[in-house]
Formats: sequence, structure tokens, C-alpha cells
Amino acid sequence: MRTARFYAAGDVRVEDVEVPDAADDKVLVEVEWCGICGSDLNEYIQGPMAIPSPVTGPHHLTGDILPVSLGHELTGWVLRAPSDSGFAVGQPVVIDPRFYCSSCAACTHTATNCCSKLGFLGLSGGGGGLSEKIALPPAMLHALPEGTPLDAASLIEPLAVAWHAVRRANASTLSGVPILVIGGGPIGVATVFVLKAWGADRIYVSELAERRREFLAGIVDEAIDPTATDVAARCRHVTGGDGVSIVFDCAGSQRGLEVGCASLRFHGLYMNLSIPKAPLALPLHVFTPKELTYKSMLAYDETDFRETVAAFTKGKFAGVERMITARISLDDVVGDGFNALLHTPDAHIKILVTAKPQL
Amino acid sequence: MRTARFYAAGDVRVEDVEVPDAADDKVLVEVEWCGICGSDLNEYIQGPMAIPSPVTGPHHLTGDILPVSLGHELTGWVLRAPSDSGFAVGQPVVIDPRFYCSSCAACTHTATNCCSKLGFLGLSGGGGGLSEKIALPPAMLHALPEGTPLDAASLIEPLAVAWHAVRRANASTLSGVPILVIGGGPIGVATVFVLKAWGADRIYVSELAERRREFLAGIVDEAIDPTATDVAARCRHVTGGDGVSIVFDCAGSQRGLEVGCASLRFHGLYMNLSIPKAPLALPLHVFTPKELTYKSMLAYDETDFRETVAAFTKGKFAGVERMITARISLDDVVGDGFNALLHTPDAHIKILVTAKPQL
Repeated sequence: MRTARFYAAGDVRVEDVEVPDAADDKVLVEVEWCGICGSDLNEYIQGPMAIPSPVTGPHHLTGDILPVSLGHELTGWVLRAPSDSGFAVGQPVVIDPRFYCSSCAACTHTATNCCSKLGFLGLSGGGGGLSEKIALPPAMLHALPEGTPLDAASLIEPLAVAWHAVRRANASTLSGVPILVIGGGPIGVATVFVLKAWGADRIYVSELAERRREFLAGIVDEAIDPTATDVAARCRHVTGGDGVSIVFDCAGSQRGLEVGCASLRFHGLYMNLSIPKAPLALPLHVFTPKELTYKSMLAYDETDFRETVAAFTKGKFAGVERMITARISLDDVVGDGFNALLHTPDAHIKILVTAKPQL
Repeated sequence: MRTARFYAAGDVRVEDVEVPDAADDKVLVEVEWCGICGSDLNEYIQGPMAIPSPVTGPHHLTGDILPVSLGHELTGWVLRAPSDSGFAVGQPVVIDPRFYCSSCAACTHTATNCCSKLGFLGLSGGGGGLSEKIALPPAMLHALPEGTPLDAASLIEPLAVAWHAVRRANASTLSGVPILVIGGGPIGVATVFVLKAWGADRIYVSELAERRREFLAGIVDEAIDPTATDVAARCRHVTGGDGVSIVFDCAGSQRGLEVGCASLRFHGLYMNLSIPKAPLALPLHVFTPKELTYKSMLAYDETDFRETVAAFTKGKFAGVERMITARISLDDVVGDGFNALLHTPDAHIKILVTAKPQL
């Protein structure tokens, strides 16, 4: 079968491999759609980072090492399943791509996303969604109702990331709470959709790219151009001078961090979803007088994923399919996928890939 | 009367000024003892920083500008009081030295320590504890029981800082919770005493200076020399591999921040009490996988101060007077106070100053 495998930075090859072995109580899934994540792109640009290499050795849970198949934002159909798996042939599914050990301190306290051996399908080995087929333990599969649009459902994984961040913000209610989202890329937009699903109705987004601001304009209260407007001053203005209550940083830049801290009210919460490319200096001269809290987060746990699937199937993310800016064929994933995101990042929010001849 | 006034970095003068006017419903207090704070020392080294200067203009609440009297950790006796002030002549008192506006968003939400115009007696004008006398609004005074040792009671202000940090840590219980305190200076030691008052019984301190480690050895579970021991490894070892639950950073160094993050368990809390001298880079590569939370804090509010006074008078800080490493005369405050702290910092935890001829 065809799969896209990472060998080195700039070296992703679409090649033929054996169909994965669905023995050992695994479920064989035919992939319908798989999104390209920013982390996939980062590996393409400067990997191997999360991908196990001869330097790091094989991943502790998968035992795999590069070349590994890429892709962890995937939906598909059950092709073959053990009789006691709870899944039947033809069942549409979305994948929770995490590998965790179930035995470390974090795992035994249900914070499986903080597992000391955490890995991801499509990065750490174990197969990847940029493939025709994939064999997975049933616990990684979440059933979707018949008729679920599997392209939009491939957004559940990034939505679960945002869901976890919003849940970690720990707000009793989000209605009326002024919120700034920094960065209108895939995770920023996913955060906006999740915030709206949680009842947030005062959402401001700071985004550099005009195209992305246009996309966001109809969805949020205001999409602010930080090169033309003083974002912090604007946030204070729309909140009667106080500042916003929560910032979701989906950009990871020093400037964004400073603007975000300046935009927050006293006792505000800075929630970081980003993985900055360079070290960030904490602006303590702003942080301390306002007694801000900075929280970091990683991925999601099974509660987040289950709740995100449920919210998706209940239609809580209305219009989320507009995040999909391209649908491409697996054979074109390097040129129309990775290189498109690398060279024209503002033109896309989410690119979906399929190995099926439906394009 | 005699007072120590800040003119510029390295230029603190003990000089004669008029006894302050206790009109306008103010209470005249005779200062008994006043501690020298790290912030006083920082002003002496590189001020004016918090002190209002011709560059910043007068402080918004006091209207004062340098030269200002220093000192905000003070106790004393009521010399004269308005009849409706609730204070009588001879009443021993400790001072909450904060000035706040009572009208900004923070103040109206009871977070008066986050007041947008926050100032401090002894830094922002309004007089200072390094004086014979001081005139204050009654709201800044907290009555102490007859017979309270006013030297130890001068530690209530730094204890209130630590109290606020521990309260902000928001732990339902501290018994059994492994805690690392970074830095065994005045605020680090105050934090240890407050933690013990709150029931903490697994306290580890990382401190560079041997003298301070010796001081701490009998008070905490372990005073660790970070130049000889891998603090993070030690923290993991004593917690069965998990790491500590809370770090209180009372040092403010990059190395301390990194060690602290490495010492924390997943979902751990990093509480910063320090005011770092240089920008700190957030170690997100540790922060994110463990989903750490970083909280900053400033001073204390009236609840903290009241609770700290109550805990002090109930004897909850047994032995805290051992923090006092010198008692000096106001006339010697530059040589035996500021220069002693500057040139032999490890020899001291807290230096108390008095203008009275009791030495």
C-alpha cells in the first residue's frame, strides 16, 4: 500500500509498503482523510524532532525508528476487527493517535497526555494516517455515527487539542468572558470553534495574515491586525479599560507573548497552546503586577477526545469544515501538502490528504 | 527627627527632617523596629526603580518624589490618634505599608495588591519606617497584643508576602505535599515558616550559601546545595520518581527556574515570589510535556496581612525571630545595613533598624 514516510528534514517519500498486520487484536482501518499538522510540517522543515531517530533510539512504546509513516489527524472505516473489539466492518471512526504507557505517575492519575513515554501515531511510529491503511488497538478508535462527513471529522484531533486547552482554562462559564486568541492558524481557528461551543461570545483574534483575518471576521467579534492596531490597547478598550480575562496563545512568538500579557486584566490567565521555535523571555514586569497565571498544555486526554467527538457529532462546531482549505491526493503530499504549507502558509488553514481515488 | 532618605543609587542619607504632620485623621506612630527589605537594597544598588523620580514624576497616590524615606517592614507604638480611629496611645502596631486607589478594577475586586497605582510606604513616599516617627491613616495599622515582641513582629510584612504566595498556591492541604523552595534568603525563609504554619511537612530548600543551609537544616526536611547535588534528581528521588508538587521560587535566577521546572511533577505549580534582575527564558521544553502552571504574585492583600498578623499572634511562626541576624541603629543604616547586605549578603537574613537608643 502507499504511505508517506519521513526519512529526514525535506525528505518525505511516498512509497509502497506492506499492508500493516492487524493481528494481536488490532483493528484494520482504511484511511479516508488525514490532515497535515503543524508538527508534521515542523518535522519536514527541521526534523527529526519528535520522530525517533538513530540519535534518540527507538520510541519506548512503539519500538519504531525512522523512516516512519506520518499523519495523526485521521478518519476512516473499519476493514477488519476482532470480534470482541466492539467495532464492526464498515464502522466510520476517528483516531485518538496517542500512545501512552498506562503505568507512570501521570497515566495512573488519568493525565495520560503527560505520560513520560507519550508518543503519537504518525510521529513516533506505529503507522500513520498518510497511508491507505493502518492497524490500531481498538482503544485508539472512536466510533462516529453513520453518515458523518469524514473530511470535517478529521478536524476532531486538532479540535481536541483546543478542547483540552479550554477545559484547562477551568472557567465556570465563558459567556461574557472577553478572550484574546493570538494566531489564527489551524490551532487558533480550532480554539475559536471550541470556545464558541463552550459558550464564549466575546472572542478577539490577533492575526498577521489578511486572508486569515478575512476568514475569521465572520466568526469572531474582531480579527485584529497587530501591525496596524495596538492589540493590547484594543483589548482594554473593548473591556472598559480592564483587559481580557484569558489569552490563548496559538502563535508562540515573543511579540505575541508580550502583547498577550499586556492585553490581560489582573489575575488573567495566559494559556499556551503553541510550541515556540525559539526560547521565550517571560515578561515578568507585566506578569507580576497583574499576578498573571501561565499554563501550558499538551495534546488532550481521553476525556477531551471523547467530549470533542460528542460535541462534533452534536453539531457544536457548526461551519468547522470551512477550516479545510485543500483536499489533496497522497501522491501529491510533498508538493501540494508540505511545500504548499511551507511556501504559502497564509493560503491554508488545514490541508486534508487521502490515498483514495476520490479526488 | 532622624530618617534615612534615598536620593540616588548609593546615596542614602540619615538626616534631620520635621516630625510628620498627623493631621487629617492620621495616626502618629513611633517606630520601634524596621527591617531592611531586598527591594530597599535593590533601590540602594540601582535605584530609583520603584521610587518616584523626576523621570517618572510624583507617585500617583502619595504625590511624593525623591528624596523619600525608606523602610516598609515596621512596628511601633501609637503616639497620637484621632478619637474615632480605634487606636489608643501606647497601642503596639504593625504596618500594612501599601497604598492603593480603592477604585480601579483590581481594587474593586478586592485584589488591592494589583492596584494599577499600587505604592508602598517607604518606597513611594508617604514616609518610611527608617525614621523615628511616621504619620499614617488608621487603615494601615494593625493592632498587636500587649507584650508582642516588636522585633519579631517586624517580620510580619515579609511573612505576609509568603502568606499570599502560599494562599495563591490554592492547595486544599499542604500536609504530605512535597515542596521545593528555591533560595534561602529572607523571602525563602519566610516562605518556609509560612508553609510550616499551613501544615506543610515535606519541605526541601535549594540554597547556595552554606551559612543559610546550616540555618535551614533544623527547620526543613533538607537544605540542598545545588552546586553539589542535582536538585531535580534529589526531588525525584524523595518523591518516588514523581517530583515535587509545588516550587516556590524565592531566587529569580535562570538556573533556579530550570532546576525548579525539572524538579516538578506533571501538573505541578511554579509559584514565583522573586523579582529577577535579568529576563528569564521559560523552559517550555520541560513546561509543556508536564503541563506546568506558572503563577506570579505581588505583595499581599488585606486578607493576607490580617491572617498573617493573626497567625503571628497565635504563635504559628515559632522560632521566626531567628531570621533576625542583626539589630542596628538608624545612624548606622548605610554602613551596617545596606553595605553589609551588599558586601556580605550570606551573613544575614534580616537586619532590623531602630532610631531608638536601645542598642
